[in-house]
Amino acid sequence: MILVIRPDATLEQIDHVVDRIKELGFTPHVSRGEARTIIGVIGDETKPQAEMLQQIPGVEQTLPIMKPFKLASREFHKDDSVVHVGKVRIGRGSLAMIAGPCAVESYEVMDTVARYVKAGGANILRGGAFKPRTSPYAFQGMGEDGLKILKEVGQKYDMPVVTEVMDPRQVELVVKYADMLQLGARNMQNFDLLKECGKTRTPVLLKRGMSATVKDMLMSAEYVLSEGNNQVVLCERGVRSFEDSTRNMLDMSAVPNVKGQSHLPIIVDPSHATGRPDLIPSMCRASVAAGADGVHVEVHNCPEKAMSDGPQALLPHQFLDLMGDLRRLAGALDRHFSNPGEN
Amino acid sequence: MILVIRPDATLEQIDHVVDRIKELGFTPHVSRGEARTIIGVIGDETKPQAEMLQQIPGVEQTLPIMKPFKLASREFHKDDSVVHVGKVRIGRGSLAMIAGPCAVESYEVMDTVARYVKAGGANILRGGAFKPRTSPYAFQGMGEDGLKILKEVGQKYDMPVVTEVMDPRQVELVVKYADMLQLGARNMQNFDLLKECGKTRTPVLLKRGMSATVKDMLMSAEYVLSEGNNQVVLCERGVRSFEDSTRNMLDMSAVPNVKGQSHLPIIVDPSHATGRPDLIPSMCRASVAAGADGVHVEVHNCPEKAMSDGPQALLPHQFLDLMGDLRRLAGALDRHFSNPGEN
Amino acid sequence: MILVIRPDATLEQIDHVVDRIKELGFTPHVSRGEARTIIGVIGDETKPQAEMLQQIPGVEQTLPIMKPFKLASREFHKDDSVVHVGKVRIGRGSLAMIAGPCAVESYEVMDTVARYVKAGGANILRGGAFKPRTSPYAFQGMGEDGLKILKEVGQKYDMPVVTEVMDPRQVELVVKYADMLQLGARNMQNFDLLKECGKTRTPVLLKRGMSATVKDMLMSAEYVLSEGNNQVVLCERGVRSFEDSTRNMLDMSAVPNVKGQSHLPIIVDPSHATGRPDLIPSMCRASVAAGADGVHVEVHNCPEKAMSDGPQALLPHQFLDLMGDLRRLAGALDRHFSNPGEN
Amino acid sequence: MILVIRPDATLEQIDHVVDRIKELGFTPHVSRGEARTIIGVIGDETKPQAEMLQQIPGVEQTLPIMKPFKLASREFHKDDSVVHVGKVRIGRGSLAMIAGPCAVESYEVMDTVARYVKAGGANILRGGAFKPRTSPYAFQGMGEDGLKILKEVGQKYDMPVVTEVMDPRQVELVVKYADMLQLGARNMQNFDLLKECGKTRTPVLLKRGMSATVKDMLMSAEYVLSEGNNQVVLCERGVRSFEDSTRNMLDMSAVPNVKGQSHLPIIVDPSHATGRPDLIPSMCRASVAAGADGVHVEVHNCPEKAMSDGPQALLPHQFLDLMGDLRRLAGALDRHFSNPGEN
Repeated sequence: MILVIRPDATLEQIDHVVDRIKELGFTPHVSRGEARTIIGVIGDETKPQAEMLQQIPGVEQTLPIMKPFKLASREFHKDDSVVHVGKVRIGRGSLAMIAGPCAVESYEVMDTVARYVKAGGANILRGGAFKPRTSPYAFQGMGEDGLKILKEVGQKYDMPVVTEVMDPRQVELVVKYADMLQLGARNMQNFDLLKECGKTRTPVLLKRGMSATVKDMLMSAEYVLSEGNNQVVLCERGVRSFEDSTRNMLDMSAVPNVKGQSHLPIIVDPSHATGRPDLIPSMCRASVAAGADGVHVEVHNCPEKAMSDGPQALLPHQFLDLMGDLRRLAGALDRHFSNPGEN
Repeated sequence: MILVIRPDATLEQIDHVVDRIKELGFTPHVSRGEARTIIGVIGDETKPQAEMLQQIPGVEQTLPIMKPFKLASREFHKDDSVVHVGKVRIGRGSLAMIAGPCAVESYEVMDTVARYVKAGGANILRGGAFKPRTSPYAFQGMGEDGLKILKEVGQKYDMPVVTEVMDPRQVELVVKYADMLQLGARNMQNFDLLKECGKTRTPVLLKRGMSATVKDMLMSAEYVLSEGNNQVVLCERGVRSFEDSTRNMLDMSAVPNVKGQSHLPIIVDPSHATGRPDLIPSMCRASVAAGADGVHVEVHNCPEKAMSDGPQALLPHQFLDLMGDLRRLAGALDRHFSNPGEN
Repeated sequence: MILVIRPDATLEQIDHVVDRIKELGFTPHVSRGEARTIIGVIGDETKPQAEMLQQIPGVEQTLPIMKPFKLASREFHKDDSVVHVGKVRIGRGSLAMIAGPCAVESYEVMDTVARYVKAGGANILRGGAFKPRTSPYAFQGMGEDGLKILKEVGQKYDMPVVTEVMDPRQVELVVKYADMLQLGARNMQNFDLLKECGKTRTPVLLKRGMSATVKDMLMSAEYVLSEGNNQVVLCERGVRSFEDSTRNMLDMSAVPNVKGQSHLPIIVDPSHATGRPDLIPSMCRASVAAGADGVHVEVHNCPEKAMSDGPQALLPHQFLDLMGDLRRLAGALDRHFSNPGEN
Repeated sequence: MILVIRPDATLEQIDHVVDRIKELGFTPHVSRGEARTIIGVIGDETKPQAEMLQQIPGVEQTLPIMKPFKLASREFHKDDSVVHVGKVRIGRGSLAMIAGPCAVESYEVMDTVARYVKAGGANILRGGAFKPRTSPYAFQGMGEDGLKILKEVGQKYDMPVVTEVMDPRQVELVVKYADMLQLGARNMQNFDLLKECGKTRTPVLLKRGMSATVKDMLMSAEYVLSEGNNQVVLCERGVRSFEDSTRNMLDMSAVPNVKGQSHLPIIVDPSHATGRPDLIPSMCRASVAAGADGVHVEVHNCPEKAMSDGPQALLPHQFLDLMGDLRRLAGALDRHFSNPGEN
């Protein structure tokens, strides 16, 4: 941490800053320049005390020089992590294709969509049983009945399943059915929920919050990791912006940005990022080329009758075409979609 | 709802749209223009079925003409609502001044700050016992011990107290101590928590999410109201933006924007919105002039030793000066800070 | 400037950084910490060479400690500046009320609106003769004929006039008619135009760009000031955001934010910021309470027939009511709307 | 255009709306629903009169159903356009690789960088002679001397050259030296400059403004096209956002978004979008995979001594590696980098 001292600080104030730094358990290195005095502070910047440094009178700015996360950082874990969801591997060249309807609506729809996405080459099946909806009057999901359908269909097609958990009280229930827990964008900073998922040993799919920075997302991953669950996959799904022709703005550079500073896998969800099926295939291709460890798309056999987010779902034949493209592209980049059971 | 039909839609498709509208329980009014066919859809747009209209093939755009919230709307409740927090009234000319430290740190600090803010004219005391922190390594709050201190100090100075609740499992505990439940920005769309607070009869202070639109905020209020709790106060606290010299961007126009479409009181929190004590007094004055029903500021007797957000806290003497200004300003606008016990 | 050296930098690299700092004309002060080496750089950070410091290999971050603007800064000019537009003073307690139609459309409309706003108490008349329009097919303004009408009507009602200049080639023409040159949001970083206006001695109204930070705006003011024109008034007019119920997001905190670091007057334009007449009066009141040196509103006697931005204009009677409110409010804050000819 | 009438509009008001629609030269189709009356308006929505429709009292909302641009639209020109810059083709599978230093600094640097990028496979050479800089004290470019160097070096290596024009008064000069005119982000809505470039027959590279929507960008292209210059290439270069770890946010979905509604080629500039060389190669790959018609990157042989934006430049060997990757990727997608002189 570097403390920049105000130009009008008195000598007494600077002495007080130095005393206070020591009191908080850090070592100060004072450097008096012509224009400014700056103080280098040696010690663990992630200690709670560190945030008190900026509050000492006479300090104009504090400039952190360490990353605020540890377990999620590449310094902590040099090599890319691989996360295992059932028999599927995510990371180090193995790509995830997570596909399925937005919500679990019925056994029939789930079964139909699963058959199609399995045939296309998806390796993880998705479907929401608890749905976060802006309106209290919108369809809120089938709850445990939905979880049962999802699990049953996943087993039928030999695909691990991922589903969202919204409430710390649901975690115990959801882990009974799910192979991966999705933490949605609206809950990326629901810290109690993060901790509760961190206490399980079920892999977590952590979606970026709608106004979260990449650093915020990594800090949220740190919450899960710090509870002992090291199976975390990040997911870029677009952030809020002024552009009104897409649902959100897909921040593609988050992929290499995360990879530079963290060992965790990251996938991209162009369905929620753009909200437009016409843009999804192109953004899936770009994600794979950008180095993402997989993609996440919504597929529905009859979007017209989908109970949630139908208009952003791909049709089964669009999904088939997309997978053909993505396999070719992945091949050209020496990567592949993980096959359940590969080593 | 108005459905705009794609220019290339066939007659069969248009017929299908009409059939589907009826199937979903609405009444279609078709209007064929030269360039486009448009279909007016009569019926309750807040029904879950309404969202399926946009998914019918051939539909290019759906244009809602009703507001998506009911109980929060001015159409539902013409007059401004007044929310009662203990003996304090918020709304219809009665202003709240919610003040206190960011976090409850100790009895001594709480007592000192409370004495100062009471002397200055604050009418509601704040202090966090459960703190949502970006980092798992930061101070997370004193928990129930903090709630006890807050309540005790509030009673000593005859001020109702407000404190944040972060987890649905905490609601039962927090309502035992708090006169008002704060729902923080990060939890504005934590729908299970909203519902849990909606089941209590304790007033709720609902803070705007960091990337929530005004409509999103009103939809979240609708969650609380729809569970039967009609004591909701909204709080503008800034949203994320590219401007990097303030913590967030205070959206002052949210105040009249909310008042135009809702009967709920709205206050402003310049402490979190700006993160800068030098901007807080000016933004408090502007809030009162804009028509807000109160303000929310952080005050600390020794920001240097505050365990959370110290740098954005006002000092006691700054708070005193501010209250002098605000009282004068409120007087000039025929409004006043609510006195506990007034009628 | 502080240079933070990469943790993996070699001694040779650090020596090279030191040499390069000297070569660029600065003085280095090296401070070796346990975790990091940091180098304080003494010298004028606004020199063009300063930006090359961050490009030296081994440098991780450069942290400026001086403001990048000089003439616009409060360090350069301690007291608030007063800008004189004709006989009207802006700054140090004297408020501007700039009012008029969006565009000059005809002598009749200009005359009618001017009569109304003069009666209400406006002290500067506005009207666009050159209009920046998103579409090449929209009304582009009356050009010089519009300037003539504006000047004539301004003289009739004894009001100085402000109008936008869009092209460096127009400056010579526009200064013949205008008492104040408006630089629009889209041209805030049109640096050749800024310089051209800086070469005149006509006061400049510099509007904040749609995605400009407060610092960017002050840097643009610096362009005008550095050419010798010190009569600059800044104008907050909202920035782009995800909120879709207002045209832009009015950043009210920009008012005290500017005042803290600059001596230049700043006014607020709620017409363009919100785009909604129902929000304008409230935002004008908030602007005055926030410490702005005036406001800028669009008024039209028949918004229905306005050729540009009609829907955001106030009607004459709304303007009259607003001015009554603002005068009361200004009085309570010991400020007043400048009367032409006051001392 | 569809006009939604306010629920409280009187019959007289509705009659007035109908009269006014006819008066403005459009044909109204009234449709009275239970909840609302809506009026379909038939006629050319790009006529200046169309914007007056929304200003008629009683009208709550106007909903355009046509695109506001014509010449740039895919409806106007079904097939992808190809833009010819010297002997290089951009569009329909032919990719541009525009590379070079940020600014022309000297003949030596330009020559060195050109030799490297030519060897790597760049087909268009870039270099700024007029530089838009936030600070008036920063290096502003070499002016005409820079143009001469750029042209001479371009000819030596048989590469057409692109350079920025900032001021309408410079257009005549710049077209003498440049094969393509760059319109920078800050000038995307400098309408006089757009028109001036539209009057030439030199191809235009139009960069997206920092807070421009995709529609805004296409409207600016329309300005150029409407003056008769149909050689326009769009460029996504990132927009402002709250994410502070990259210079801007690269909106990758703008690529397919533009392609869906316009025939114009679009390329991506990851150098300005991210400001970080570590993210550029990955974003170039993603751009090609997303369907962009080329990329634009800054390259410098000694970024440390670059006079502008050095830290975001790639080194020559990084550029060589990148081009190898991009050629493989383009091949897998049946596309190729245009060779000067191909047919």
